[in-house]
Amino acid sequence: MTIAPWRSPLSRALHRNRALPNARYVQLATVRLDGTPANRTIVFRGFAQGCDDLQFVSDRRSEKVQDLHHQPIGELCWYFSKTREQFRLLGPITVISATTEAEPWQQQRHQLWQTLSDNARLQFCWPHPKQQRTNETLFATVPPNPMQPSPHFCGLLLQPTQVDHLELRGDPQNRWLYQRAPEGDWTRQTINP
Amino acid sequence: MTIAPWRSPLSRALHRNRALPNARYVQLATVRLDGTPANRTIVFRGFAQGCDDLQFVSDRRSEKVQDLHHQPIGELCWYFSKTREQFRLLGPITVISATTEAEPWQQQRHQLWQTLSDNARLQFCWPHPKQQRTNETLFATVPPNPMQPSPHFCGLLLQPTQVDHLELRGDPQNRWLYQRAPEGDWTRQTINP
Repeated sequence: MTIAPWRSPLSRALHRNRALPNARYVQLATVRLDGTPANRTIVFRGFAQGCDDLQFVSDRRSEKVQDLHHQPIGELCWYFSKTREQFRLLGPITVISATTEAEPWQQQRHQLWQTLSDNARLQFCWPHPKQQRTNETLFATVPPNPMQPSPHFCGLLLQPTQVDHLELRGDPQNRWLYQRAPEGDWTRQTINP
Repeated sequence: MTIAPWRSPLSRALHRNRALPNARYVQLATVRLDGTPANRTIVFRGFAQGCDDLQFVSDRRSEKVQDLHHQPIGELCWYFSKTREQFRLLGPITVISATTEAEPWQQQRHQLWQTLSDNARLQFCWPHPKQQRTNETLFATVPPNPMQPSPHFCGLLLQPTQVDHLELRGDPQNRWLYQRAPEGDWTRQTINP
């Protein structure tokens, strides 16, 4: 497998910013059922083995999973504050839920579940996200089985088709656009900031 | 004027995170002409006088201005890393360009231009964003008149209609949803994280 050409600058940014507690926090934009945009912070869970897909996790009861069923595409905006650079990654997103068939998907979902901390796994046992919370709302406190994903647990895989890399350092700033042709080859263009 | 109820927690977050160089950097999601989502980092330029509109600036040649002509709505995602909290602000966005008529808009555009640094103003004199850059591409180095906005300079005003505030600190996390009724009143609901 050939690694996509934007992987090298992104890996370098992750390495140089690794001391920041939120270097793996990234903003994901999707389109809601009513056509309006949605935006929230999610945690990068590494690349899938043997390909350039970025991995994330989500609760299937969350609105982003609904958005993605309607319009299965997202753009990530990843700002690295130490090196002052931004990556925008656009591409289709695959949702792997408990009911997704075919063995390799479920294996990947199980692996993602196992990489989570107890605290992260616990949140999938909490009541329905965004519903009204009262003093009576109960939150589970015992972490679930680390070997058996919660039925609410989903893996999200974003396969970039376009990556826009901007370095604020530099006078003028530097910007590159990577685009993936349908047959899989990448081009890289130097563009105006 | 009554200040919207989410202004107080947002001001507190801005104050507590003020030592971070990127506390005023926020991610803006819009919808492209082809219906796919777009996401990029922009700089918060303060609230408009006498209302709850958030101010930003943009080059009218940039894709976000095209996106907003097509679908004039955006969602901001604002993550504060010191206090570990997130604000998502959804609402219509007004673009004030050089050709926007009516005096109050142009006055606000002039004021925004004046608040920029020379370096920020200079970028509006650069060649067309996202076009191919070669060794021959020339970038202006003399800042423009601080009293006369570049014809490419636009103000963006986002008027929130929904604000989703999440505090990661807390066990479980805390989350509130603010919603604006058509007549302008705000409601606040405590919701599940």
